[in-house]
Amino acid sequence: MMTMEKAQLIIEAAIVKAKEIGQPMNIAVVDAGTNLTAFVRMDGAWLGSIDIAINKAFTARAFDISTLELGRNSQPGDQFFGIHVSNHARVMIFAGGVPLKVNGQIVGAVGISGGSGAQDQAVAEAAAACS
Amino acid sequence: MMTMEKAQLIIEAAIVKAKEIGQPMNIAVVDAGTNLTAFVRMDGAWLGSIDIAINKAFTARAFDISTLELGRNSQPGDQFFGIHVSNHARVMIFAGGVPLKVNGQIVGAVGISGGSGAQDQAVAEAAAACS
Amino acid sequence: MMTMEKAQLIIEAAIVKAKEIGQPMNIAVVDAGTNLTAFVRMDGAWLGSIDIAINKAFTARAFDISTLELGRNSQPGDQFFGIHVSNHARVMIFAGGVPLKVNGQIVGAVGISGGSGAQDQAVAEAAAACS
Amino acid sequence: MMTMEKAQLIIEAAIVKAKEIGQPMNIAVVDAGTNLTAFVRMDGAWLGSIDIAINKAFTARAFDISTLELGRNSQPGDQFFGIHVSNHARVMIFAGGVPLKVNGQIVGAVGISGGSGAQDQAVAEAAAACS
Repeated sequence: MMTMEKAQLIIEAAIVKAKEIGQPMNIAVVDAGTNLTAFVRMDGAWLGSIDIAINKAFTARAFDISTLELGRNSQPGDQFFGIHVSNHARVMIFAGGVPLKVNGQIVGAVGISGGSGAQDQAVAEAAAACS
Repeated sequence: MMTMEKAQLIIEAAIVKAKEIGQPMNIAVVDAGTNLTAFVRMDGAWLGSIDIAINKAFTARAFDISTLELGRNSQPGDQFFGIHVSNHARVMIFAGGVPLKVNGQIVGAVGISGGSGAQDQAVAEAAAACS
Repeated sequence: MMTMEKAQLIIEAAIVKAKEIGQPMNIAVVDAGTNLTAFVRMDGAWLGSIDIAINKAFTARAFDISTLELGRNSQPGDQFFGIHVSNHARVMIFAGGVPLKVNGQIVGAVGISGGSGAQDQAVAEAAAACS
Repeated sequence: MMTMEKAQLIIEAAIVKAKEIGQPMNIAVVDAGTNLTAFVRMDGAWLGSIDIAINKAFTARAFDISTLELGRNSQPGDQFFGIHVSNHARVMIFAGGVPLKVNGQIVGAVGISGGSGAQDQAVAEAAAACS
């Protein structure tokens, strides 16, 4: 189960990785019901990425998949093209959202936004590894 | 005409097919006025697909076409590209929404979401066959 | 925990009560995460009440309180006046939404809309008694 | 200036006060630009109050006033009645949002939601005292 304490630890892990990369990030954690549990914006992180980080976390739990992988199925001509406007346009289809698992069970998700897709994904994976 | 009883039977048919496939689904039925008549989320079905199932049903009746076929006309460069953001972004352009007909007349639609496009479509067609 | 089967039983209990009262209702059940689990509109129930039933259920779980009681604290001059526009205006502050408890723990909520406040509340309480 | 570190300290102060009161809270901090800087939901805090805490913080900085005081001017017949639906219905007009000042200058705001108006206000004031 997701708790405030666990969410804060996941955020701390994300901060460590973001500092290592040298790119300030917006970091969001949602619980199993897709509800926001914790969030921080690192100093200097993009303001437009606040919403994106939160919605990447939402998306990764809403579909139990990384947003990177969902994006691969949601390009023009793909089986899920158009999914990005569903759920009141909160579905993010690019890298940075990753489900959080405990003993193989999904307990929530983390969403990272503030850098390139590769940077966001690296930070998200580092954070998810702590869940 | 769509009734609560008929909508529930269509949902039961969808559940049977979803269990046969082994993929939990969100299942929605709308009436001829595009209004939601019945809905269920099978245990474990994607949370982000609640909205999508309802909107696939909306779309299939709103345009009297399967969302699969609408999607074929709504890719970049196609005649309806951009339609997915109309109607407050409730138009779904990928498989899983199918009109419901009685004696050739459309009486509503069913929307399925929770698996691959092929799985959603198979369940929607099985459900529609009961209308 | 909320399941599809339990949600359907709660809906059946609501239908029985609504028929006893002689007023068709829209009936919604959400889970502990406020996500829609099941819904039906009885034949002839108000179309505008589809949204209201779903949002009454959302509200009752979102604040762990009946919408009737929340409404008593949300009138002009009261401590929560204005809460009805929060959460993207999905907060309903009149009778018909009731939390669902199992062994004292809230597992979701039911929302009823289609009649007077007293009728909606009576059906919601009858449904909640089955959870 | 608001920083991530300062926002986290303000949140910690809010958690201490909320625990003292014995009521789990949603806690949000925004910067001088009204943008979300940090957020936590304490275990068991109302799910519907996530949005409200964030928007109380938004409101307190957007109008440089506590939401309690704004509410006193926004009841029916008052000079600002109706303001709660402005800004995409994000203006909260009940207690729990307080501007954050440093040397008399507003640097952001804190928003608290999860209890009665008096509880939310007490936690918000305790948090603001740390800024």
